[in-house]
Amino acid sequence: MLMSFFFSDRDLNTILDLYEAGEKFYLYTGRGPSSESLHLGHLIPFMFTKYLQDAFKVPLVIQLTDDEKFLWKNLTIAECKRLARENAKDIIACGFDVEGTFIFTDLNYVGGAFYENMLEVAKRVTYNNLRGIFGITPEDQIGKDPYFRMTHDVAPKIGFQKPSLIESRFFPALQGECTKMSASDPNSAIYVTDSSKQIKAKVNKYAFSGGQASVELHRKLGANLDVDVPLKYLNFFLEDDDELDHIKKEYKEGRMLTGEVKQRLIAVLSELVARHQRARAQVTEEMVDAFMAVRPLPNMFG
Amino acid sequence: MLMSFFFSDRDLNTILDLYEAGEKFYLYTGRGPSSESLHLGHLIPFMFTKYLQDAFKVPLVIQLTDDEKFLWKNLTIAECKRLARENAKDIIACGFDVEGTFIFTDLNYVGGAFYENMLEVAKRVTYNNLRGIFGITPEDQIGKDPYFRMTHDVAPKIGFQKPSLIESRFFPALQGECTKMSASDPNSAIYVTDSSKQIKAKVNKYAFSGGQASVELHRKLGANLDVDVPLKYLNFFLEDDDELDHIKKEYKEGRMLTGEVKQRLIAVLSELVARHQRARAQVTEEMVDAFMAVRPLPNMFG
Repeated sequence: MLMSFFFSDRDLNTILDLYEAGEKFYLYTGRGPSSESLHLGHLIPFMFTKYLQDAFKVPLVIQLTDDEKFLWKNLTIAECKRLARENAKDIIACGFDVEGTFIFTDLNYVGGAFYENMLEVAKRVTYNNLRGIFGITPEDQIGKDPYFRMTHDVAPKIGFQKPSLIESRFFPALQGECTKMSASDPNSAIYVTDSSKQIKAKVNKYAFSGGQASVELHRKLGANLDVDVPLKYLNFFLEDDDELDHIKKEYKEGRMLTGEVKQRLIAVLSELVARHQRARAQVTEEMVDAFMAVRPLPNMFG
Repeated sequence: MLMSFFFSDRDLNTILDLYEAGEKFYLYTGRGPSSESLHLGHLIPFMFTKYLQDAFKVPLVIQLTDDEKFLWKNLTIAECKRLARENAKDIIACGFDVEGTFIFTDLNYVGGAFYENMLEVAKRVTYNNLRGIFGITPEDQIGKDPYFRMTHDVAPKIGFQKPSLIESRFFPALQGECTKMSASDPNSAIYVTDSSKQIKAKVNKYAFSGGQASVELHRKLGANLDVDVPLKYLNFFLEDDDELDHIKKEYKEGRMLTGEVKQRLIAVLSELVARHQRARAQVTEEMVDAFMAVRPLPNMFG
């Protein structure tokens, strides 16, 4: 089950308490659209957001920070806008309800009240704040958490409720926890554009195994689940919890071999990716326009 | 004549050559709307811009940087927007032709193509650029010239012609060249909202005189025109060049006393300010809307 793998949250109880008291809230997530196609790690937060939208029936706002990608990547404005729109199609393909979902790109939407909010925040963020929050120079790679910590600090100063945050557990590269999925190495990740054949080849060849060096040793010692990538991936994507528990037990105790676990993972990922590709093929330009249309969302602010 | 007191230009010949070759250009100026009412030093660039618009019949764009004032002054967004609109009325009162003039405020207009341009420039400006151009930390007081130097550097990088620049000679405070007109000291400047009585009192009491300590000495040595504020103000505002030359000669050679020069200045400023007040009283909200309407300007880009 996907839910249990989102382990890090901040003030989630606050929002759940408010929700039970009948207060409204909305979901916010986003993506920096710097690459043509998403990999599975990109997909996870959107799959989880879709789960939350279905569970709470609340409005959802998805921000595509094409302006930031323009500033920090070697891309033109036109290219950033195109990537944002292409990425929006992959996001829409996750099955969001257009009635309650607003997707916007900074390049198309910054201005008016949005620009005023940007300034309200900017005015309250000093260089020392930034150093304190990020602790590093802007050239370094940084995750998104510092931005949310900043939002936490600033929101109350301008009269808003602090956001509650949920962060996804780190999704590893095929090569293992200590490596990073990299756009420059297509073998480090499964992309939503990969074919079943590519998925099979990547999993079999690159997915880091926690199994033992020989079948005999494996039967005797079992797999090391802490480092096994196929099992980590199944944790995220195998929907049947009972089957997942069964695989874990069998694999850990050496009755199941890495090849068998990989075979199951290949089937799961192939189905997931094929389903995504079918859904994405159905996403029209008109649908993108509908998700991006500026309009009131039902129950957005009570 | 106002013209001769705008002495600093950059690449003005370039644009005049292009103009003679039949190329189009437009005028751009602006103001950071941080105070309720303008003083005469604020009015000068707009008076000169009006002269240029009349002379060349070219489009004019006036930017009101209310966003910048919000960031750096202790003002709310609403207050910055209100000040921008009030200042726009004073600018319109200078007599600009609504057909060829677009006045905009950043808070109302940032977005779309404008935001894209901001990013195109921002991407090409590094922290080191800023240090190189400004040479000082952002907290210090800086004039506008560094911004135009930045525009000079960046415009060709994104495929645009460099701007030609005209800068106004420094307009001194009543107390003299070495003091600064200050919003916190209303006696340092003549405001466009001052009454004739206030103008008379300020000029008589505060305008730094280059005359001698006694009438006898003054008749003998004459006035020091280099430091005399009433004469500097007449340089800007007395339209009759012959009369100006006459006053300079008489004053310098001691035949005219400071009191007489001040009396002439009081008359000139009172008339100027009263004319401005009459014009401003005619500026309606509808006129502001008309100047701020997004629409094509005639001959804006050929």
